[in-house]
Amino acid sequence: MKVEILKENLKSGLSVVEKIVGKNLSLPILDNVLLNTEDNFLSLSATDLETAIKIWILTKIIKKGKVVVPAKFLSSFVSLLPNEKILLEEKKQGLSVECKNFRNQIQGFNPEEFPLIPEFKNLEYLEVDNRKFCQGLAQIADIASPSQSRPEISGIYFIFTKNLVKIVATDSFRLAEKNITLEEPVKKDITFILPQKPAREIINTLGEKEGKIKIYFSSNQTMFEFPMKEAAHPQVQITSRLIEGEYPNYEEIIPKKFKTHVIVKRDEFLNQIKAASLFSGKINEIKIKVNPQNKEIEISAQDPDIGESQSIVSAKIEGEVIEASFNHKFLIDGLLNIKSSEVIFDLSKEEGPCVLKPVGDASYIYVVMPIKST
Amino acid sequence: MKVEILKENLKSGLSVVEKIVGKNLSLPILDNVLLNTEDNFLSLSATDLETAIKIWILTKIIKKGKVVVPAKFLSSFVSLLPNEKILLEEKKQGLSVECKNFRNQIQGFNPEEFPLIPEFKNLEYLEVDNRKFCQGLAQIADIASPSQSRPEISGIYFIFTKNLVKIVATDSFRLAEKNITLEEPVKKDITFILPQKPAREIINTLGEKEGKIKIYFSSNQTMFEFPMKEAAHPQVQITSRLIEGEYPNYEEIIPKKFKTHVIVKRDEFLNQIKAASLFSGKINEIKIKVNPQNKEIEISAQDPDIGESQSIVSAKIEGEVIEASFNHKFLIDGLLNIKSSEVIFDLSKEEGPCVLKPVGDASYIYVVMPIKST
Repeated sequence: MKVEILKENLKSGLSVVEKIVGKNLSLPILDNVLLNTEDNFLSLSATDLETAIKIWILTKIIKKGKVVVPAKFLSSFVSLLPNEKILLEEKKQGLSVECKNFRNQIQGFNPEEFPLIPEFKNLEYLEVDNRKFCQGLAQIADIASPSQSRPEISGIYFIFTKNLVKIVATDSFRLAEKNITLEEPVKKDITFILPQKPAREIINTLGEKEGKIKIYFSSNQTMFEFPMKEAAHPQVQITSRLIEGEYPNYEEIIPKKFKTHVIVKRDEFLNQIKAASLFSGKINEIKIKVNPQNKEIEISAQDPDIGESQSIVSAKIEGEVIEASFNHKFLIDGLLNIKSSEVIFDLSKEEGPCVLKPVGDASYIYVVMPIKST
Repeated sequence: MKVEILKENLKSGLSVVEKIVGKNLSLPILDNVLLNTEDNFLSLSATDLETAIKIWILTKIIKKGKVVVPAKFLSSFVSLLPNEKILLEEKKQGLSVECKNFRNQIQGFNPEEFPLIPEFKNLEYLEVDNRKFCQGLAQIADIASPSQSRPEISGIYFIFTKNLVKIVATDSFRLAEKNITLEEPVKKDITFILPQKPAREIINTLGEKEGKIKIYFSSNQTMFEFPMKEAAHPQVQITSRLIEGEYPNYEEIIPKKFKTHVIVKRDEFLNQIKAASLFSGKINEIKIKVNPQNKEIEISAQDPDIGESQSIVSAKIEGEVIEASFNHKFLIDGLLNIKSSEVIFDLSKEEGPCVLKPVGDASYIYVVMPIKST
């Protein structure tokens, strides 16, 4: 392999693939990036065996070939090089890097030992606006359960139905659903459960790109592909295994009727919950009292070692007086996932599920369970 | 105690004093801040028994008194309050905080248990330009030895002599000295060794303030005071115990003669050392070869597991060819402490101390020992 590449292009490519690379003591090959020539592109690939990222960079290819070198090391090193052309060359099972006054040789691995990344050629895909997809996924991905005791809810559930993709996550204390319109309706419903890590990689890597994202899937794998304009290769592919198992029938949990309907300013409500959270003690409990008479929400918390907190926020309130206790973390997470200046807060009864929604956007819903009074 | 204070003023005051507060399990009173009324000021004090910070804020005092409450907690809480007036009031051995829609009660401690902070009233002091002093101290403070096996070099050495304050630190591998002009010459020489922590607090707390800093001292204490204009109280006082012991005769270590004199662009030299450092292996060794014939510095490093690095930077060089090995960390630290675009790099011999200095500023010198060849 021998290629000439601009420092900035190599640096930005490495900064994408290095994110998936950890410090893998039992399988050190996974700490590496595979550099490969494909037509007039240099591809960079990294994998943790569950998620893989591959990107393509337009490059002057002088000689074809493959090299495998430590990903984070190469990335740190390249970022110190001057903003010039870099000559990368395979030498002594490693990579020679030449740039202006720099001559470097990086020890590598045998490219044959690098794990194969599954390909999805000639298969069907679905298409959706990339920024809407990534923004929606970002409102959902962190809700998934961190515990592995129920693997199916440790991932993010995707339902492709009619002209929609529904993205869902829950940890059994709260649940969020986002609906995004597909470019074309699906012929039959498709569902799968994506692990949390590739979901985060999609958000981080593709979040800002304008265009359409292609979603490929098989029975146990999925691939998210962002295309490159008028090129033989895509810009980025993120491939992941899927989580086996059946996702719970989550729609049952979303309440349809409410006792009390509230519209409140998001920032003020969020700030008061944060302030109360400091006084909430070990079980994170804060009390919320919704009063339609004086149109006020009272937020309070107390702990004998810390003190007491009480604050009041004005709101539009319809329905009955309700008082319920919440884990402040779950309310804060929900409000942080909503970007509108006002939020809808619907309460059913003291111990029933409540709902947070943005005002003026029916595509997102966040369901949270109160803490049961003892 | 009952006072009315602006949120922004209380917040910025707490952000200063909370820095000294850790999580002190054996003496929980040290996690607190003492709020005290003094004339028409509220003072905030915190201490770790070695270093103390006290600041004064102009405040509407309604009733005199003292309160002791957790510092980091109060700071986090106040930063969530609206930008309004806050009413602070002593209640039930704690602090009641009222602000707009917020009513809070924070559990406190008995103010009598709060440690006394030594005062320096009616003593002599020295005066020096604050920003120059803090900038100089910042070029020195991190060089002190982190080890406590030789406590005298774990601190920063101050020498007040004639119209100068010399600030010195070493960890026996490298040494730095900064000279700053005093407002008035001292009558007789004064020296003391300040621990590293209060030095860092001075830099962080006072670094940006324009004016003169007053330095008080006794046999075992020192105080750095930044005044408030036309007020009965200063803005900030940082008090510290001093380190006992005799500072080594450091001037002997500063070489007076050199074999080779180099002037090189700081950023380029620094960047190449950083790049080589990635290839330097466990003992951090990089090689520097200075060649007056072709006016180049060659920087190289190698490690069998990582690879090899070689880079070249052009420089003005007078004297003999010299090759020496350095711990890259020590060269990088020295160059980071120098802000000029060009640096002087003077080498005496393969195993003798070398010197880094800013071009055009004789007030700073950084001495570094090469790694002895084995």
